[in-house]
Amino acid sequence: MKPRVWAPAPSEVELDLGSQRIAMIPQEQSGWWESPTELDHGADYAFRLDGGDPRPDPRALWLPNGVHGASRAYDHDRYRWGDGDWRGVQLAGSVLYELHIGTFTPEGTFDAAIDKLDHVVDLGIDVVEVLPVASYDGPRGWGYDGVGLYAVHEPYGGPDGFKRFVDACHQRNLGVALDVVYNHVGPVGNYLGEFGPYFNEHYSTPWGPAINYSGRGSDDVRRWAVDNALMWLRDFHVDGLRLDAVHAIIDTRAIHLLEEMARDVETLATQENRPLWLVAESDLNDPRLITTPEAGGYGLTAQWADDPHHALHALLTGERQGYYCDFGSLQTLADALSSPYHHAGTWSAFRGRTHGRPLDRGNVPGSRFVTYLHNHDQVGNRATGDRMSSYLSRERLMIGSALLMCSPYVPMLFMGEEWGATTPWQFFTSFTDRDIAKNVKRGRRHEFESHGWSSGDVPDPQDPATFERSILDWAEPGKDDHRALLDWHRELIALRKSRPELTDPWLLDVQTSYDEDERWLVVRRGGLAVAVNLAGQPQAVPVGATVDEILLASGDVETGGTQLRMPAETVAIVTLR
Amino acid sequence: MKPRVWAPAPSEVELDLGSQRIAMIPQEQSGWWESPTELDHGADYAFRLDGGDPRPDPRALWLPNGVHGASRAYDHDRYRWGDGDWRGVQLAGSVLYELHIGTFTPEGTFDAAIDKLDHVVDLGIDVVEVLPVASYDGPRGWGYDGVGLYAVHEPYGGPDGFKRFVDACHQRNLGVALDVVYNHVGPVGNYLGEFGPYFNEHYSTPWGPAINYSGRGSDDVRRWAVDNALMWLRDFHVDGLRLDAVHAIIDTRAIHLLEEMARDVETLATQENRPLWLVAESDLNDPRLITTPEAGGYGLTAQWADDPHHALHALLTGERQGYYCDFGSLQTLADALSSPYHHAGTWSAFRGRTHGRPLDRGNVPGSRFVTYLHNHDQVGNRATGDRMSSYLSRERLMIGSALLMCSPYVPMLFMGEEWGATTPWQFFTSFTDRDIAKNVKRGRRHEFESHGWSSGDVPDPQDPATFERSILDWAEPGKDDHRALLDWHRELIALRKSRPELTDPWLLDVQTSYDEDERWLVVRRGGLAVAVNLAGQPQAVPVGATVDEILLASGDVETGGTQLRMPAETVAIVTLR
Repeated sequence: MKPRVWAPAPSEVELDLGSQRIAMIPQEQSGWWESPTELDHGADYAFRLDGGDPRPDPRALWLPNGVHGASRAYDHDRYRWGDGDWRGVQLAGSVLYELHIGTFTPEGTFDAAIDKLDHVVDLGIDVVEVLPVASYDGPRGWGYDGVGLYAVHEPYGGPDGFKRFVDACHQRNLGVALDVVYNHVGPVGNYLGEFGPYFNEHYSTPWGPAINYSGRGSDDVRRWAVDNALMWLRDFHVDGLRLDAVHAIIDTRAIHLLEEMARDVETLATQENRPLWLVAESDLNDPRLITTPEAGGYGLTAQWADDPHHALHALLTGERQGYYCDFGSLQTLADALSSPYHHAGTWSAFRGRTHGRPLDRGNVPGSRFVTYLHNHDQVGNRATGDRMSSYLSRERLMIGSALLMCSPYVPMLFMGEEWGATTPWQFFTSFTDRDIAKNVKRGRRHEFESHGWSSGDVPDPQDPATFERSILDWAEPGKDDHRALLDWHRELIALRKSRPELTDPWLLDVQTSYDEDERWLVVRRGGLAVAVNLAGQPQAVPVGATVDEILLASGDVETGGTQLRMPAETVAIVTLR
Repeated sequence: MKPRVWAPAPSEVELDLGSQRIAMIPQEQSGWWESPTELDHGADYAFRLDGGDPRPDPRALWLPNGVHGASRAYDHDRYRWGDGDWRGVQLAGSVLYELHIGTFTPEGTFDAAIDKLDHVVDLGIDVVEVLPVASYDGPRGWGYDGVGLYAVHEPYGGPDGFKRFVDACHQRNLGVALDVVYNHVGPVGNYLGEFGPYFNEHYSTPWGPAINYSGRGSDDVRRWAVDNALMWLRDFHVDGLRLDAVHAIIDTRAIHLLEEMARDVETLATQENRPLWLVAESDLNDPRLITTPEAGGYGLTAQWADDPHHALHALLTGERQGYYCDFGSLQTLADALSSPYHHAGTWSAFRGRTHGRPLDRGNVPGSRFVTYLHNHDQVGNRATGDRMSSYLSRERLMIGSALLMCSPYVPMLFMGEEWGATTPWQFFTSFTDRDIAKNVKRGRRHEFESHGWSSGDVPDPQDPATFERSILDWAEPGKDDHRALLDWHRELIALRKSRPELTDPWLLDVQTSYDEDERWLVVRRGGLAVAVNLAGQPQAVPVGATVDEILLASGDVETGGTQLRMPAETVAIVTLR
């Protein structure tokens, strides 16, 4: 390959090959520079800007020496793919499984993860969603502080490792979604600003300066992001992208970055002849994201829906801290099971302002929303990263997963959730910069101290033990303690796939009834009903029609005409006559 | 009136009446405080927050002692309106006249301005558009650094003065538009931050911190802006608002401030049973602003269109500095006369990035765009505030105004333009804060030094002489030197009103032909043609059909079949057979 780089900031760019330096040739007016010579796959190189220290390529495809070291030339065409039969997968109708490569297995690599794919397939999963794999500083981290956006993190196995992983998934009929971060870059190893105007001086995000998507020079910054998205889908055969925190992408242009990205991804999907999808993590409750461009939207495939999660979590756990303060009643949950925006132009106490916008529930299918009982954030952003299974009864967990798997949304599990993993998933980092490391540690402690935690109870993110504690224990799914919950998930997923009523995405088809005092809830999905007894004692729950057959139940539920006699804290999925 | 104030920041608010202090009563949970006692119209009051210095009411209706002094209670109902016959005015079909109260007359007051309204009426104007009248620091200024958004600037005549002005306009069948600024507040006299979270820490504008329209506490900040818009329309009988620099309003909510404002203004228009309109100054070239909410837009009535101005200015003057660098050819002008967005997802050299978005010219009428040969910015932001008439031939000025008045857009004149005023309109301020005054002076000088001006040639904004030079000389319109141009404008406006082809807003109906080398341009508007000879010598200009009658010409134009024989630098408006 011939190194090229967009670097409008310096007036001189050299290609540093270790033994020699070669002047890069400026391309007319564009800010781009091109090397006069080709590099072979595997050759190390760096750029020197105006004679400064060597810097990695902002579009390096391989950073085997980490985010500060030399880039290595990488030829996408050398990998021999074995997924020729793969025809892609639609998001609608799928069940997702979110996993973090570093803690999914003790080895923390793609290759080790491949060995666990049969477990995932056996569970009934359609798509694994991988937390960010772009290169970040230090070996360990969640991945949201990536700086080498085009280079797969070397400790996970680098670019070839990720290809082997995707290939192995596809060969098992599993799709792959990838989490990508375009709202900021990490605080360590970020040399982008030396190359050009990657950052915007007028806006900031909670994690650092906002990326310059609408100011001077932003055309090439946008291409850096959009080309990155296209690369994962095209060169790594990824099926969909999860776009991290799009509410922190500040773009004032008439054509929003996300619209540009969606348009280009759509073009690629046509060329590749397989579905490719974009899912936004969004704290906006704004239908514009998932509305077509013809109707004034950005044209994304779907978005994460936090509100149904919050409604489930707050009801099941009784927790009301932070964003749970707006949730907790049965009514809120019942609404959230067919209204993905709890806040739709209405007051949010958590935000101290009105939030969101009404959604046209008659026209927007539930398959445009991904939801969960757990995701990495909702576990890892707790002080000790404790999973719901460590503070909630098995009975309530089963109720939660049944409601999730019977929802009109696209359900997602977080790795280990299916067996009630006892390992926490904590916030861990391994920044090599001392000041940043100290700040991260201190920031984390202060955050939770302000919520009443004593500092000793909040794990140190930089301590390797914090990371190690977060690694899944693969002995667990084989143990009796965990097998029932694992089977429950397997059965729920199988039921979801065998019953079209459950994947029916039309929100107005979901009918709910409940009794806030008696603590029961019934969700009607066509000829099926999901009945929940949340009370601490048995009760008869009216399902509104004569029960035909109990398809699945978490306890000794008995039918009785139009009622179900349900033990305390049980759920049953039944057919109706 | 009973003083009320939104002040969630302090834990104690007192009403300071000079002789006594009264504790304000907090309204449950809302951040609002209410006085236990009523105040009469004319009573002075201030607020003390947590025992601090007295501060003016953020919604003060009267600030007779300036932006730092006490607020004075004001009862809107005391004014006796005489405009009962006024039924409102549509923006579409109107000709606008922009004026600045402080420099429109030597007195610089509303009452003095009333005396000049007959001139405006005689010219054929439908709507006068008044530069901001909200209270700002110091007596003199353009008005864009207002801090008392609800109080009419006292040196202009205060709230009663503005009412007399609007009343007088309406009685002369003139509509009134008002320029309002919701993107920032001025640097001096801004105590808003002491009351509550009016400002956003994550974003900044070129003129200071961004207003908090989407963060915590923003509901009441939005009401402060929206209620202000409603007040001008309802209580001052204003017909439309010009929203300053909406591109600098940062709002990440699913329902944008401008959409909320447009919705509330629409409701008020229904209640008042007269047209009320919102026009955005926007540097976005984004159709979303003027698209209906049903189609994903904000629902504003119109926006200012700078691109047609730039195209006209650059062609007529040959200037290419600053934003004119993207303009200058006859083709650009010909396009701009039916495409208000020159940049529509295309490269802008001035911005160093791609800009804008295509407009559906088949469905968006030209009446959604206000344009001009001059506006206050394009004059006043020049180093010496020199008007086009001081550096352009009378012939070219006449060509420019003819093209403006024959365009499918809503044309606007800047006060004095109609007679080719020799008075400049310079940048003037009168900040009472020494540091700010020094910075403004220095900033202005530096800005133009970087463009090659010597500092002595750039007027000092704080010098009263700069302001005085900018006052119109009303002896001029009566002088022979100026009468021809004044008559020309009067005739053009009369022609525009008598010929429906000229107010036809449909952009696809505008047909242009031109010859870049021969320097001629023809604009066809139905059965009319506007022919321009920009060459330095006479030439025959083909109009594409047989000429019937010359309706108006700036020189000795003669017909000859399908051609016009035109002297150098002339324009003619003709009917076609």
